[in-house]
Amino acid sequence: MKQSRTFIPTMREIPTDADIASHQLLLRAGYIRQHMSGVYSFLPLSKKVLRKIENIIREEMESIDAVEVLLPTLQQSELWEETGRWHAYGPELFRIKDRHYRQMALGPTHEEVITSLVRDEVKSYKKLPLTLFQIQTKFRDEKRPRYGLLRGREFIMKDAYSFHSTEESLEEKYSEMKQAYSNIFSRLGLNFRAVIADGGTIGGKGTHEFMALSEIGEDTIAYSDSSQYAANIEMAEVNTDYVKPTEALKELEKVETPDQHTIADVADFLGVEPSKVIKTLIFKVNDELIVVLSRGDHDINEIKLKNALNAPDAILASEAEIEEMLSCKVGSIGPVKLPLDLKVYADHAVKEMVNGVCGANEDGFHLRNANPERDFAIDRFLDIRFIKEGDPSPDGNGTIRFAKGIELGHIFKLGNTYSEAMKATYLDENGVSQPFLMGCYGIGVSRILAAIADQYNDANGLKWPKELSPFDVHLITVNMKDEVQTKLSDELYHLLKSYRYDILHDDRDERAGVKFTDADLIGLPIRITIGKKAQEGIVEVKFRETGETVEWQKEEITEKLQAFFG
Amino acid sequence: MKQSRTFIPTMREIPTDADIASHQLLLRAGYIRQHMSGVYSFLPLSKKVLRKIENIIREEMESIDAVEVLLPTLQQSELWEETGRWHAYGPELFRIKDRHYRQMALGPTHEEVITSLVRDEVKSYKKLPLTLFQIQTKFRDEKRPRYGLLRGREFIMKDAYSFHSTEESLEEKYSEMKQAYSNIFSRLGLNFRAVIADGGTIGGKGTHEFMALSEIGEDTIAYSDSSQYAANIEMAEVNTDYVKPTEALKELEKVETPDQHTIADVADFLGVEPSKVIKTLIFKVNDELIVVLSRGDHDINEIKLKNALNAPDAILASEAEIEEMLSCKVGSIGPVKLPLDLKVYADHAVKEMVNGVCGANEDGFHLRNANPERDFAIDRFLDIRFIKEGDPSPDGNGTIRFAKGIELGHIFKLGNTYSEAMKATYLDENGVSQPFLMGCYGIGVSRILAAIADQYNDANGLKWPKELSPFDVHLITVNMKDEVQTKLSDELYHLLKSYRYDILHDDRDERAGVKFTDADLIGLPIRITIGKKAQEGIVEVKFRETGETVEWQKEEITEKLQAFFG
Repeated sequence: MKQSRTFIPTMREIPTDADIASHQLLLRAGYIRQHMSGVYSFLPLSKKVLRKIENIIREEMESIDAVEVLLPTLQQSELWEETGRWHAYGPELFRIKDRHYRQMALGPTHEEVITSLVRDEVKSYKKLPLTLFQIQTKFRDEKRPRYGLLRGREFIMKDAYSFHSTEESLEEKYSEMKQAYSNIFSRLGLNFRAVIADGGTIGGKGTHEFMALSEIGEDTIAYSDSSQYAANIEMAEVNTDYVKPTEALKELEKVETPDQHTIADVADFLGVEPSKVIKTLIFKVNDELIVVLSRGDHDINEIKLKNALNAPDAILASEAEIEEMLSCKVGSIGPVKLPLDLKVYADHAVKEMVNGVCGANEDGFHLRNANPERDFAIDRFLDIRFIKEGDPSPDGNGTIRFAKGIELGHIFKLGNTYSEAMKATYLDENGVSQPFLMGCYGIGVSRILAAIADQYNDANGLKWPKELSPFDVHLITVNMKDEVQTKLSDELYHLLKSYRYDILHDDRDERAGVKFTDADLIGLPIRITIGKKAQEGIVEVKFRETGETVEWQKEEITEKLQAFFG
Repeated sequence: MKQSRTFIPTMREIPTDADIASHQLLLRAGYIRQHMSGVYSFLPLSKKVLRKIENIIREEMESIDAVEVLLPTLQQSELWEETGRWHAYGPELFRIKDRHYRQMALGPTHEEVITSLVRDEVKSYKKLPLTLFQIQTKFRDEKRPRYGLLRGREFIMKDAYSFHSTEESLEEKYSEMKQAYSNIFSRLGLNFRAVIADGGTIGGKGTHEFMALSEIGEDTIAYSDSSQYAANIEMAEVNTDYVKPTEALKELEKVETPDQHTIADVADFLGVEPSKVIKTLIFKVNDELIVVLSRGDHDINEIKLKNALNAPDAILASEAEIEEMLSCKVGSIGPVKLPLDLKVYADHAVKEMVNGVCGANEDGFHLRNANPERDFAIDRFLDIRFIKEGDPSPDGNGTIRFAKGIELGHIFKLGNTYSEAMKATYLDENGVSQPFLMGCYGIGVSRILAAIADQYNDANGLKWPKELSPFDVHLITVNMKDEVQTKLSDELYHLLKSYRYDILHDDRDERAGVKFTDADLIGLPIRITIGKKAQEGIVEVKFRETGETVEWQKEEITEKLQAFFG
């Protein structure tokens, strides 16, 4: 492709409306342009990368018998009403009326549409399992679109849905998907983790997120430094093999702690480690106030708490609620001598505490040497704290470290949530009607583009991995008015094309400096410059990844390229 | 692909909601399903065909330096207001409000978006010409969606836009596009014509439609039986080499014609051919009444009339308006002795009429031997009649025939209509600001699927051309419980895959009759059946196109397939 005939509007300035490097670079290197908030045009370079990403995804999907379809963007509101999501989805669902005033949704996801399609067409267990996927533009009216392609209102997704008659079949497809996703992100060259995740509003029991590691990630991942274990910190289980100190139990003692409210204050004032303090919180769960205990150096994870109690949510009680019940301030509450009807839950770590410090339920006082089960009863011990860096990995291998991540993929075991709501059933071997078991599996295709730009760049521009680069080779003719240079350029262009390399030829009438700066921005893996040494049949070659520059004789170019591209 | 693992919901009944054969077959053979009026799901078979169509289009676009992009579906209403189309487009434009109550359009076409993009990024003539294309789902809220994929509300299009600094450059790209479109439709195996067309609301001067010939077409094409000439009958020019009869002019004579109102009645009553009658019509053009004359066997084409007069429209005057002006009924008007201020226009054919019959502007009377220029003046002769079957072709080669067509593609020279409205300019060689010259070029991708189904079918189902068939070979195992059959099937499946054939293997536990009926419906070009003769290494082969059935030895299969697929 001649650069003069394509459309790569590079920019010298850093665009002021882009706040992260990957977004700035995709704009500056002429890959994308914003049309309006959260809505982008994919220019020729990014369209080529998207097609490569899509082909990798397509190959991996087809390798596990997922079959490609294309479902409608315009979706009947009636189907969304069947699942209750017409209301539950909220303002993120774009709604539109047609000329007959019929309500429709612009598809942000396709559970309803595909369940309705399969409900109409698949009547027997004999046609299961069935896995369908599509690669399609989706719409979600984000409250605050940001980070360019990372959080847009119009974006490209791969979504897949599987239908099963047995749990085993769903399990099998789920683990095939998990493997296929790992293959995809590995082939894309991404530094990623498969992370145990929360199902969120889409529902479902088993679920993994595939996260690209990134400093700008909005999620925190807890991962083992020595195994494959990784989980969203909101979901990470904690290894509960705490060692109980051997020290002897001492007598409970009430001490004055004037104006000491926080764990740190109290520990400091009493000269103990925060891990010696029993943190006492009051939550409202299912409209009931409960007491929740943890070690002073641990934090309660509200998502784990609500999941452990099987409640829709767990919210901290207000100061007023607490004072009304215990007649003391938040900073002074503790588990000893609480009203009898209050349920007490504690994190597993509390069980192994000895001679702890806790509030005395009296302003200005704490208790020393409080011991669980001797001084206060606990209804249930639960795994309800946030995992910490340095904790042992829950899988028993290695130590937990934290990283930030960008969610690129998400796989769910939906079970029969959607099929029951939509009365989507098949006849089993005994002729009995059963709801389908379902899985759903998404990948943010346009988001991948941003994640790769995030992981592959330097101060001068993008640095595409070979497999995804929009072109293989950037061929630069320094002086388009020099016949020797243009002749060698043409010769090389046709030679390399005959070797099936995809070449971007900078044939523009621009200064060499402009061409080099643009080439670094665009970031093709290898740059071949035809300059003054063209007369001697010598070209200059720059490897974008390392910055290394060498000279090649024109006769050795194809061989050396083959060695580079492998 | 194993048929048991994919999704091909065939139907035995003819769906009652589908009124044309191609639509019925695409439904029955499990290629598509309707989601709601004018909105379809593309199931696995049609998705594969779509990809093949798209790849052919992509290759031909790239061969003429058109570069692929992907523009947004959600479009700023402000841009549509710049061109005036926010109002002019009417209810066919889907309009949507986001959560901040901002108005947007769902893209039915992308002139506004691309002009705005190029306006922002291309500032110099040096970057021209530039041609961009995309393949994308489009939205148009059709009043009456019908014929399945032929007139939908959500459909796939290829749209391309070119930008130029000179008329010559636009001309050149237009003719490259015309050739590329011919290549595309030829490669798709379609019986089509490139037809001179009307620009319609999109504007533009030069324009061709690419029409698939079809009995269910909504447009009529006039084409030459001996050349490439073809035009929409609304636009077809007429060859004006009329031969003037040699008969001598006779005296004008008034005759009684009681109750004779139509051309046929009058001709019959007076014993002359209709071609001897001068048809006189009164039109209202630019708020003025005008007289329009044609030969009695010709029909006035209102589109040609308004174009010839450069008027927004040309409407027949009402009876009341005519009677008020001429004091006689419509059936009795004629060009002789009309009020002096009435303009008279005539089709070229009238010039060569001798001793014609016309109304006498008096109820119940006509004139014989009326001769133009002797008995009545004509302001201008114009080419304003509809072409007729049997007319000589306007290009001088052959005779005109009519056919019905389905519009698949449309190319336009837009000129500067959009760039002027949107103030999209570049600096020319002299540093002077100029509006871009533009072309736009569309193809209905999903509509092509229907057009091929329309041209390739028989009573039993579809008959895909080899290049577009979703699979190359339908491999049918008659009895999945017969080990000899399944073993030979597996062996062949892998052998043919190794030869890069794409195979649909009917491995379902169904009766042979069901499998054969489905295979005919689905319509792959070649069917290989493994049945009782598997033991002897013999398979049955059926060619879908001809219906011919032969037996092949398994050893000769690859060679014979190669001969078939070429």
